[in-house]
Amino acid sequence: MNFTRRDFNRFAGLAAVSQFLPAVQAQTPDRRVGWCVVALGRISMDHFMPAMKTSQTGKIVALVSGHRDKAEKQAAIYGVPASAIYNYENMDTIRDNKEIDAVYIALPNSMHAEYTIRSAKAGKHVLCEKPMATSVADSKAMIETCKTANKKLMIAYRCQYDPTHLKAIELIRSGALGQVQAIESAFGFNCGAGEWRLDRKMAGGGPLMDVGIYCLNASRYLTGEEPGNIYANSSVIDHDGRFDTVEENVGWTMKFPSGIVASCNTTYGASMTGSFRVHGAKGMLQVLPAFNYDGMHLTAEIGRDQKIDELSTARDPIEFNWQSDHFADCIWNNKMPKTPGEEGLRDMELMSEIYKSAGLAAL
Amino acid sequence: MNFTRRDFNRFAGLAAVSQFLPAVQAQTPDRRVGWCVVALGRISMDHFMPAMKTSQTGKIVALVSGHRDKAEKQAAIYGVPASAIYNYENMDTIRDNKEIDAVYIALPNSMHAEYTIRSAKAGKHVLCEKPMATSVADSKAMIETCKTANKKLMIAYRCQYDPTHLKAIELIRSGALGQVQAIESAFGFNCGAGEWRLDRKMAGGGPLMDVGIYCLNASRYLTGEEPGNIYANSSVIDHDGRFDTVEENVGWTMKFPSGIVASCNTTYGASMTGSFRVHGAKGMLQVLPAFNYDGMHLTAEIGRDQKIDELSTARDPIEFNWQSDHFADCIWNNKMPKTPGEEGLRDMELMSEIYKSAGLAAL
Repeated sequence: MNFTRRDFNRFAGLAAVSQFLPAVQAQTPDRRVGWCVVALGRISMDHFMPAMKTSQTGKIVALVSGHRDKAEKQAAIYGVPASAIYNYENMDTIRDNKEIDAVYIALPNSMHAEYTIRSAKAGKHVLCEKPMATSVADSKAMIETCKTANKKLMIAYRCQYDPTHLKAIELIRSGALGQVQAIESAFGFNCGAGEWRLDRKMAGGGPLMDVGIYCLNASRYLTGEEPGNIYANSSVIDHDGRFDTVEENVGWTMKFPSGIVASCNTTYGASMTGSFRVHGAKGMLQVLPAFNYDGMHLTAEIGRDQKIDELSTARDPIEFNWQSDHFADCIWNNKMPKTPGEEGLRDMELMSEIYKSAGLAAL
Repeated sequence: MNFTRRDFNRFAGLAAVSQFLPAVQAQTPDRRVGWCVVALGRISMDHFMPAMKTSQTGKIVALVSGHRDKAEKQAAIYGVPASAIYNYENMDTIRDNKEIDAVYIALPNSMHAEYTIRSAKAGKHVLCEKPMATSVADSKAMIETCKTANKKLMIAYRCQYDPTHLKAIELIRSGALGQVQAIESAFGFNCGAGEWRLDRKMAGGGPLMDVGIYCLNASRYLTGEEPGNIYANSSVIDHDGRFDTVEENVGWTMKFPSGIVASCNTTYGASMTGSFRVHGAKGMLQVLPAFNYDGMHLTAEIGRDQKIDELSTARDPIEFNWQSDHFADCIWNNKMPKTPGEEGLRDMELMSEIYKSAGLAAL
């Protein structure tokens, strides 16, 4: 097969959805990737699994849930046999299910490590949601275990497979914006009480771990560099019980080796549509909203005359297929995922630095 | 007179230009403020002086310039007598010109202190452009001298008198956005070679002093608080001679006593339209462009239903009259300016902290 990762990425970046899917289909081997979904929460039931209905590369073949009733309903929708419904106690027996090639981990953050490790030990490849874990040590253990088991580990950095983000990267790399000097990025929302993401034990941290990570990761893939000089501020303004264990706000600045300076903000206390702006010598590029499941809107002003205004054609839940298509390509062609465990680990280490700089506990 | 500063500010914030000017006129005493303009650069000749043609509160009565020819041309336009054209050597004799009430200092930054002090010692009130000086010590000397001379010192923080900025402040203070959690602000441009602003001796610093100061000042008047926890990064990317003495980029984060976190960026190396975004529990407010002389555009999304979209009615150069109208009110009614020397000093001290945090020399 001559369809390289480079081709795949270029294709994903340039092609519209309608052109893209048949092209991938043409490359698929006889059978699709069989996915086992671990945890039936919103991101699984409302996005990842519905997307798989239109996938040319994968299908849902097994479920892991603590709620048998809920699992049976979902199993009926996706044609999953009762024998392929697992719970958290017996999920290690997925090793005996040859239909399962890969596991999608969509548990609360604190459980990512355990279930990634159990999945790899059961002989399955793993696509794990971000943040990859709640500690740097756990992240390293996940990478090590997958390596030992000779299984692929990919972190679900969805945006790195999204055509709008790839277009932004392409515009930067092509030199269209001139030398990039600065990046601004923000993402947050006013988080309602009672969510697991407000419990440090489950989430590992507050908005930084959940949504600020998008800004951090975007700053890295937009520049193609690794940041240093990380300085952060954190605060809790609303003493209403929501922020007893996690932070409410984080703002930070960082500097890349080329000299590009990035400023990021995240919050669980305010309306903060995900966005980034890239400021170059020749022009400015913005994506707003940037991190949604659809409706990504790229605008750019280059020089005096050139304006770009592109509304993403990505649709929720199809947006979720780009990353699983990529993982299928990696599995079939024995490639390193574009966003491997090491990519998730780097963000974990950087978020740990951000927390430390803000006077909070390291990860 | 019952026209208080509070009324004045409220009026400036709510009234359209057409309503506003006659109202101020009704309050004016018999004669207008006589302005002496020091330095005939772009901001004087293209903005401040043309604005004065439509002013109801002031008129140009004297000029100070190193170029007699240039000064005579401008004098003819504004009806300034030849006897009221001064140079930098004899400008202290403005003390003998009773037509002059106030001096507008529009020199390169490094000369603000000397000419503010000479003006105050000549018995004139001073409106000085931002940044007020190139060192904290000079700023303190300016304040002290004006105090001793019993003359008013106001820093030309134009935006604090602009209706769009006042509307933003009003929306925040009214609680419409809910509790504010975070602010993003940026301002910069790709600065051509050969400008005095690229010479540290003249400018005192780079983009932070020139345009980043807008972001800093806006963060302060939008929150109504004084920031701490200032952490900054600075860089020079373009080694093309422009940045031999001043920085090219600065990004910084700061935290206000309430817990609001602000992230700011400034540059002389990239296209960076001045803007700020305020993120509150109930909604988000943006002004983009924010710091221009016209075309300020305020948008806000509050809750699910309320959208605000207001394009400023301010026009260049009339935009420049708001601040001189305010200064006239202060002179006539012996009031402290809303943006006195102490306001400028605070920014100088904070910019000094930003530079120190970035590893650069303090101011």
